[in-house]
Amino acid sequence: MGTLEAPSAPGGADCAALKTNMNVDYVIQYDISSDKAEAEAGFIQLIEALTKVGLASEVRQGDGSSVLVFVKVASNQYLTSQIYRERLQDWLYGVRTSALEKDVAKVFENEPVTEAERLRLVYLLITKPKNDGGAGITPKSGQWEMVTSIFPLHDHTFNSAWIKTWSTKYFLDEEDLDRIRDKFGESVAFYFAFLQSYFAFQVFPAAFGFAVWLILGRYSWLYAFVNSLWSVVFFEWWKKKEVDLAVQWGVHNVSRIQHPRAKYQWDYETPDPVTGELVKHYPPMKRLKTQLLQIPFAIACVLVLGALYIFCFGIEIFLTQVYDGPFKSYLTFTPTIIMSSLLPVLSTILTKVAEILTERENYQTNDAHLSAFVSKIFVINFITSYSPLFLSAFVYMPFGNLMTPYLHIFTTAARRFCSEKSVTTQEFHINPDRLKGQMVYFAVTAQVVNIAVEFVVPYVKRIAFKKVERVQARLASQDDDLIKDVPEEHKFLQRVRDEAKLEVYDVAVDYREMVVQFGYLSLFSSIWPLTPLSFLINNWIELRSDAMKIAMSSQRPIPWRSDSIGPWLDSLGFLSWAGSLVSSAIVFLFSGEDEGPGGDPSKVNVVGLLVTVLCAEHLYLALQFAVRYALRQIDSPGLQKERKQRFAMRKHHIEETLGPDAMEAAVPPTSRTGEKITLVALEEEARRLSTTGGTPEQTFWLRQQGMEETIHIGRKLISQAKPHGNWESTMQATIETVEEADSRDGSRATSEPAA
Amino acid sequence: MGTLEAPSAPGGADCAALKTNMNVDYVIQYDISSDKAEAEAGFIQLIEALTKVGLASEVRQGDGSSVLVFVKVASNQYLTSQIYRERLQDWLYGVRTSALEKDVAKVFENEPVTEAERLRLVYLLITKPKNDGGAGITPKSGQWEMVTSIFPLHDHTFNSAWIKTWSTKYFLDEEDLDRIRDKFGESVAFYFAFLQSYFAFQVFPAAFGFAVWLILGRYSWLYAFVNSLWSVVFFEWWKKKEVDLAVQWGVHNVSRIQHPRAKYQWDYETPDPVTGELVKHYPPMKRLKTQLLQIPFAIACVLVLGALYIFCFGIEIFLTQVYDGPFKSYLTFTPTIIMSSLLPVLSTILTKVAEILTERENYQTNDAHLSAFVSKIFVINFITSYSPLFLSAFVYMPFGNLMTPYLHIFTTAARRFCSEKSVTTQEFHINPDRLKGQMVYFAVTAQVVNIAVEFVVPYVKRIAFKKVERVQARLASQDDDLIKDVPEEHKFLQRVRDEAKLEVYDVAVDYREMVVQFGYLSLFSSIWPLTPLSFLINNWIELRSDAMKIAMSSQRPIPWRSDSIGPWLDSLGFLSWAGSLVSSAIVFLFSGEDEGPGGDPSKVNVVGLLVTVLCAEHLYLALQFAVRYALRQIDSPGLQKERKQRFAMRKHHIEETLGPDAMEAAVPPTSRTGEKITLVALEEEARRLSTTGGTPEQTFWLRQQGMEETIHIGRKLISQAKPHGNWESTMQATIETVEEADSRDGSRATSEPAA
Repeated sequence: MGTLEAPSAPGGADCAALKTNMNVDYVIQYDISSDKAEAEAGFIQLIEALTKVGLASEVRQGDGSSVLVFVKVASNQYLTSQIYRERLQDWLYGVRTSALEKDVAKVFENEPVTEAERLRLVYLLITKPKNDGGAGITPKSGQWEMVTSIFPLHDHTFNSAWIKTWSTKYFLDEEDLDRIRDKFGESVAFYFAFLQSYFAFQVFPAAFGFAVWLILGRYSWLYAFVNSLWSVVFFEWWKKKEVDLAVQWGVHNVSRIQHPRAKYQWDYETPDPVTGELVKHYPPMKRLKTQLLQIPFAIACVLVLGALYIFCFGIEIFLTQVYDGPFKSYLTFTPTIIMSSLLPVLSTILTKVAEILTERENYQTNDAHLSAFVSKIFVINFITSYSPLFLSAFVYMPFGNLMTPYLHIFTTAARRFCSEKSVTTQEFHINPDRLKGQMVYFAVTAQVVNIAVEFVVPYVKRIAFKKVERVQARLASQDDDLIKDVPEEHKFLQRVRDEAKLEVYDVAVDYREMVVQFGYLSLFSSIWPLTPLSFLINNWIELRSDAMKIAMSSQRPIPWRSDSIGPWLDSLGFLSWAGSLVSSAIVFLFSGEDEGPGGDPSKVNVVGLLVTVLCAEHLYLALQFAVRYALRQIDSPGLQKERKQRFAMRKHHIEETLGPDAMEAAVPPTSRTGEKITLVALEEEARRLSTTGGTPEQTFWLRQQGMEETIHIGRKLISQAKPHGNWESTMQATIETVEEADSRDGSRATSEPAA
Repeated sequence: MGTLEAPSAPGGADCAALKTNMNVDYVIQYDISSDKAEAEAGFIQLIEALTKVGLASEVRQGDGSSVLVFVKVASNQYLTSQIYRERLQDWLYGVRTSALEKDVAKVFENEPVTEAERLRLVYLLITKPKNDGGAGITPKSGQWEMVTSIFPLHDHTFNSAWIKTWSTKYFLDEEDLDRIRDKFGESVAFYFAFLQSYFAFQVFPAAFGFAVWLILGRYSWLYAFVNSLWSVVFFEWWKKKEVDLAVQWGVHNVSRIQHPRAKYQWDYETPDPVTGELVKHYPPMKRLKTQLLQIPFAIACVLVLGALYIFCFGIEIFLTQVYDGPFKSYLTFTPTIIMSSLLPVLSTILTKVAEILTERENYQTNDAHLSAFVSKIFVINFITSYSPLFLSAFVYMPFGNLMTPYLHIFTTAARRFCSEKSVTTQEFHINPDRLKGQMVYFAVTAQVVNIAVEFVVPYVKRIAFKKVERVQARLASQDDDLIKDVPEEHKFLQRVRDEAKLEVYDVAVDYREMVVQFGYLSLFSSIWPLTPLSFLINNWIELRSDAMKIAMSSQRPIPWRSDSIGPWLDSLGFLSWAGSLVSSAIVFLFSGEDEGPGGDPSKVNVVGLLVTVLCAEHLYLALQFAVRYALRQIDSPGLQKERKQRFAMRKHHIEETLGPDAMEAAVPPTSRTGEKITLVALEEEARRLSTTGGTPEQTFWLRQQGMEETIHIGRKLISQAKPHGNWESTMQATIETVEEADSRDGSRATSEPAA
């Protein structure tokens, strides 16, 4: 491990080496094992490029084949101007809702720079293309082939406090997540927030599953329904929570600001219609052609992995349930051996193919690239993770007896190799507990193994390595003076050399693990209702072991921003929906007294199964609709805060430009209310206007001048009206001068519809 | 009709009466047929309330039982201040993206006030609650029971030009819609935009359906698939188009500004978290209790209407296909008579119940109220419109023969009424063309009848009424002088009295008709592939007849704003999805050689049917996903425009507050590049610092001062490295003063994982 010191450990110098990062922002590991002249030329370019963007550098000896370049921002003022500029850009793209103040000092007083922010900006300075104001250093590609890695240094004081806190409390709170965010960026913080929420949500199905296990046993309709409802509620709730967190962390909509992929190849440039900047384009139809390769890829995955699974599945069943010859106890391990030796190889090959395909789809941004890659590895993961259970539930259990003739292939094969007599077979019987056994394996054994692999093995491995290294070093030091550090820097440099050797942390690996687990829960947990309880315990440990993985056995991650868990959300949604289909089918097949069709397909009620699946899916969709509707009623505190800020900002703007009373209702002009005008005068005016050529409109509005006139005339009209709705008398009071009673003939404009 | 004059009609006075609206904004019809004292008191209050909010009024005699109050804004300046204030509010709520200028005159020069905007604001002035700056006049409710209606006057010059243009062109363009928007508001304009888009989209299925009808005949898989794909594309396209139109008309997100419902009852007030204004609350749980009544309501609808349909369906089949007794030719009309007499009654009752339910759900805003009401009448419409076809396709055709025993109930009943001998029966045979016959009825006959009812009947009715009225008027005028208008106003007032009698236009009625039609297309059109062609023709006429309905037989609508077709969108989505289920089931049941199960349920392949429906639905969902993905790739011009404005606004703001160079990259400080420092001096400084207590950090960064130093040392390190990765010699060049070769023992900080 070597990179984490217990804070109470004695030894002042060691402690100091861990406590200070020497103000280093990034360490660039530069490979010098190849041609020396080339390495020297490249090194000069590297240092020049760094200096040009305002970064100071120091070089030190690395391990045998590399040098370490330490980088920090030369002037703090320059960094703050960069950060201010980025915050401005956030506002320009709608990530921030409140505009920045002009006074830079005040801005940083209100919102201090977090370590993650600083490190992210320095990393961008190092890696951004030159025409974008960066040094354009892209590790391991093109011109910078010899730059092996660029990593920030761990804050060991923080790390040990972090691990200590987390291992001594049951639930993490918001502050814990905020601290992660300030140190490792929103991208990592989102993973822990998701895992913590998922863990907290699992308490309910764990308790409920335990109760069901006690009372109803496996294959319970009630359990399947509650589990499906739970997955819907969790999924929909998380979608809201995600937005909330993003607003709280000030990264809502940050996915709009996309960092271009370094390897993106473009065909032509056009100005962006919104910002007016030149944008590099790649024809979408060209990309679509590459994207269509996903279909053969998915088919290939299904065929290759499917064939492997079916093959192993056949052998396994033959060996455990048919074969009764010699070495049976050893031979039963054959499928496991085949599987565990071939599966990683195939997975790696397919993942590599997925990588190449995604690369060729040539996405413009890192996010789009990641999303496309995740959707591909999701297919591989889906098959590798769930195939054994699918085969057992939907092939072995219903069609097991039909398989017998095919199993004789193995008998024949076995007889070829051995002497005929020694191969005896027993009659084939469906093992009704196979499904449950597998589920227990995935829910318990596999998880334990996983924790061991993730956590214990690296621990042991590193201790062992350390011993070996120490011995080697002692031997080497007798040879020549291996590393000559300045004494006061030695411990620090040794620590940095150690960190350089660590793996790069990839949050996608951890997400994948959790998504696969969610799939087991959603698709198959009705087979064994203790599954959620087992996962609950596992996830408590997982949260801590992932924290330790970051703190102790990985390089400190680059603190990227993100506003969600990204493409994994779709995977969760898909698994939740597929759960409604698969778990209802499983419960339908295996619930009841004799627990399943027992290998006899004629026992399967196909119509019943189809109706069940159809109903379950639509029930699922209805539940989803209802849960969404219900959650929409609850206002998200994050979005509310954002709206509030936006509203305040606009109101402020209005008040600033238009004065504080702009939004107050204007006082209506008092229309000619109080004037007392005699009827005669009114008449006079109307007549004057009609003779002197006042427009009909003017005349119309002069007949009653002022409210009181209108009221007066109105009251007259009302009192003159016949109770039965006819007019009693003439309107003498209104206009005395009506001479031609034009109204008598009642003729109106004859109505003709327009052509 | 009486309200529309052919523009070329002779008669100057008539023409003038139609051409001018006397600057009247609104006409308020005030009922005086009840108690006179009360009517007078109410009238005074009315005029006072109007005057208080800056409206001028004139009163004139209405028909026998009412007076007409003419309202206009007293001062244009006041109106412009109101409009300016509303535009500010739009900006405050994010409807406008660009802030307003301070110079009011310039604002109105850039964006002149449309007639719709003016009329909407005046209407709001009349109807808004008093504490909101309005006169608080709510027609037909509470204190204002006697205000029968408030309506603007038609612009007859525009109307006749409108009808003339539309009846002489095949396709409407954007300008046509813009004109509608300027006159009647976005709410009406959205209906015409939707109808026009729907019509244009129908050209494809009409042509395709015609081809299928010629070549493949009915119940074609290909047709069903293409039709479903079409409905998905149309639906998804319209969702985009809607947003585009909203942006273009400047009403995007206008649904955020909600007008409170006048009848809303609230329990308590709290300040709004965003705007800080007091908001009236009604507990959502209380509302939920009322909302749950929707479930028994939906069940009641199904039971009541279903029973009616099944009853009529039974009688019909009995009479047409079993009964062979006397009066057969007359009796076959019995079900039609029962249906057409009972259905409107039941529909009206259920709609009334839906209205009461929605009222009791007590929504805060008009939009929420409308949306809840629409979802309820959608249930009623769904049952009344599609039940006959559902019964024929899924009851009569597959289970027809099972019905025979039940039909004998009717025989027995018939025998009771008639003498036994005269009731003869024929053997029951399934009529295979029943389904098609019904579909033709709904696609052609019903549409023709509908146009007749909507268009021809009112025309005839009004001409007849006119005649009757004229006779009555003549009789009355002999009695006493019925109406005494000022001669020059007489024609105008007669016109207003006519308009007062017209119906209020309700756009929901027209939407409902189109949504029901879309349902026929999506669910059942595979029965008769000519359906879309028939609908295409119908919709061409529908577009014009709806325009004429607004122009000639309705009061001019209040020009409300809206940013979508509202709750109807959900109905369309539901029908499109249901179409995938229903049409696949129909095609599966009836395609093939013998066209359907012919009344024998054993002929139905249930497993096949279920698998088909399941596959069709998932194919539909996959298509929807693909179409959404594809359409997302295309940027919407409207949203682009909005983003552009927002971006420009923010950029402007930045430039204004921070100067034009704020977004330019700051120039990095030139770090100590050029300085020439001797190695000795460097050493000296480092040593000095380490002895005088400079921090280790300071010392670390002083070892190499400036880029050239770093390059120099780096090159040395590279050249000294062993080709095999080990260090060849000591680092004498860097630091000459290394005295204790601490590095020799190679001991590092012993690594212990933190607890």
